[in-house]
Amino acid sequence: MAAFEFTVLHEDETSRARLGVIKTRRGCIETPYFVPVATLASVRALGSDDVTALGAQCVLANAYYLHIKPGDELIKDLGGLHRFMGFDRPIITDSAGFQAFSLGFGREHNISKIGSIFPDGRATREKRENLTRITDEGIHFKSAHDGAWRFLDARTSMEIQSNLGSDIIMAFDECTSPLSDYEYTRQAMERTHEWAGHSLQYHDRSQAIYGIIQGGWFEDLRRESTAFITALPFDGIAIGGSLGNSKSDMHQVLAWVIPRLDERPRHLLGIGEIEDIFACVERGIDSFDCVAPTRLARRGNLFISPDSGGTRENKFRISIKSGKYKADPSPIEPCCTCPTCERYSRAYLRHLYTVNELAYFRLASMHNLHFMLRLMELIRASIRDGTLGELKRKWLQ
Amino acid sequence: MAAFEFTVLHEDETSRARLGVIKTRRGCIETPYFVPVATLASVRALGSDDVTALGAQCVLANAYYLHIKPGDELIKDLGGLHRFMGFDRPIITDSAGFQAFSLGFGREHNISKIGSIFPDGRATREKRENLTRITDEGIHFKSAHDGAWRFLDARTSMEIQSNLGSDIIMAFDECTSPLSDYEYTRQAMERTHEWAGHSLQYHDRSQAIYGIIQGGWFEDLRRESTAFITALPFDGIAIGGSLGNSKSDMHQVLAWVIPRLDERPRHLLGIGEIEDIFACVERGIDSFDCVAPTRLARRGNLFISPDSGGTRENKFRISIKSGKYKADPSPIEPCCTCPTCERYSRAYLRHLYTVNELAYFRLASMHNLHFMLRLMELIRASIRDGTLGELKRKWLQ
Repeated sequence: MAAFEFTVLHEDETSRARLGVIKTRRGCIETPYFVPVATLASVRALGSDDVTALGAQCVLANAYYLHIKPGDELIKDLGGLHRFMGFDRPIITDSAGFQAFSLGFGREHNISKIGSIFPDGRATREKRENLTRITDEGIHFKSAHDGAWRFLDARTSMEIQSNLGSDIIMAFDECTSPLSDYEYTRQAMERTHEWAGHSLQYHDRSQAIYGIIQGGWFEDLRRESTAFITALPFDGIAIGGSLGNSKSDMHQVLAWVIPRLDERPRHLLGIGEIEDIFACVERGIDSFDCVAPTRLARRGNLFISPDSGGTRENKFRISIKSGKYKADPSPIEPCCTCPTCERYSRAYLRHLYTVNELAYFRLASMHNLHFMLRLMELIRASIRDGTLGELKRKWLQ
Repeated sequence: MAAFEFTVLHEDETSRARLGVIKTRRGCIETPYFVPVATLASVRALGSDDVTALGAQCVLANAYYLHIKPGDELIKDLGGLHRFMGFDRPIITDSAGFQAFSLGFGREHNISKIGSIFPDGRATREKRENLTRITDEGIHFKSAHDGAWRFLDARTSMEIQSNLGSDIIMAFDECTSPLSDYEYTRQAMERTHEWAGHSLQYHDRSQAIYGIIQGGWFEDLRRESTAFITALPFDGIAIGGSLGNSKSDMHQVLAWVIPRLDERPRHLLGIGEIEDIFACVERGIDSFDCVAPTRLARRGNLFISPDSGGTRENKFRISIKSGKYKADPSPIEPCCTCPTCERYSRAYLRHLYTVNELAYFRLASMHNLHFMLRLMELIRASIRDGTLGELKRKWLQ
């Protein structure tokens, strides 16, 4: 059995938010928690030394991409993903199911999970080749690198994740698009259910495993999937996409699913905007992962809290590119204790950004990641104190 | 008067090498020393927090580029370069004279100071526009950015360096090419001498100033320039390029110049290969600066000492791109105490390099810079102990 235990320490009285702690073989994760994403065994622009120093309790790496490069067997031979990337806290891996969407339908139609532009920096409108073929047996991926096709099914996904040696793994699933119709979404859900059983059958028993609820934004499918997945002996439950086309669609999906879940920890895949975090926490989500904080940082968008002028309207961001920061001697946030704010001014960061100095990416990413981790601390403290509502009003009004 | 003092602590018996200490208003620099280059107020890919943690005693920034972006007056308004870049140890600035070469003749003829390919990553053979026009009054620079012409002379160079607030500044000079003929090199030298006087006249008295000896690779010009510059009340003496077309040309230039210098500290501009460092130290150079360690790191070339297989033949480098490191669990150097070697394997660094992860650039740059600083420590210790010859044999045989 996997060393895995989840304890709810406190439940909020006026929302579904809950304070908890996930115990894994490599340490604890206090929830609700934002999980930084280390797709290719590196939180982009940061070293594991930085990520550790920022106090990240865990990271999420991508099983599919690490299978391609440098190869999960190589990582196994080198002592596993923790040793490989120099990170000794819990690691979560996803199963490759999301890549079925992002390299397939999402790529072809140039959309991300909730309908925004495709998240690889190319805001192009042209159709691109669908790099996946999905059957009931599994997913065929065409490598964008060498054009070779690879096949993954639940069993190989479990083998890959076992080789990586992560602490929490995800069942193999198919993530669908908001543009998928009812019939396709049902088929994909049924495949996901079949694969959930295979995942449980083949997974490495030393790893905790989360099942993934699918069903798109169709109420009956979400209910059916919730019932099916929760009936299986998973250690935790993840809610996969599509979550619809808008924030209200996402809230609707959560309203269908979460009241039907038991006490097992709940992970929402790929969500990370400030507003979404409050929305998900108060609906009972325990953890989420997202590349947004570091991606936004790289593009010049730096987080600011309400104390520094952050609002729902400005999305709690400043754009460091703006000329108005050219001579600004203050740190990104005067109240921030991150390594960047302790030493550098907005003017300096803008300069580094403008002249394309590599140091910018790390300093900006450290701030944004620190910001998210600190926000989660505030949220946990507010659940403990019964003041989550006040915290939310302060941030979102 | 500038707070500046140089003390020779020990002279080597069998070479011209000397152990010394430069005292500045912001702390000491033990010599011989390799000065990391922070062209645009950032040692490329590193934060000043990294540079400080690595133990760098000082850095060298570029007056010309900072004048263009973000502007020296802006930096002055923000409290000076130290505060701007978050670095509280001594900063040296160069005067823009080297840019007269690198943006002018060097650019047009696609060569660097000692005849190698142009150091901006484009190993092209095509001619490019000369972006400078040099007169006896000063240097006109055409901005590659907006096409506007700017004029710098000794007075403006001194003003720029005063605005930056660096601790050690360089006189305004003209750096020539190894392809320049005798007549041109003489003219340029005479201009440099004229500008040396102006630099002393106009410089900020709170800053220490180094004069620059020019004269290309012509013996009589180097002798004349040495006599002229050393007769002026500079705090230190720099030797500028051209240093000829080869290592032996450079050694010849040093042989013409150094025996005629007095005890003031001697800086060699733009030199940083391992072999050159030994050659220069034993010829009596106290400091040098070079972008090579961090540039090499970014291109995948990581330094190794003789204990890890480094030799003159492999230039004390491994190419981390090589497939042979794909599964190599050892750090770049087992004996290295840098933050990169303490945590990460060659296999991981190769992976980051291969998938183009930003974290690579910092981790690689930290190792190469640590390596150079550590080599200088070894060299200083060996001068103290009278074992420089042994150290050199160990490294270069």
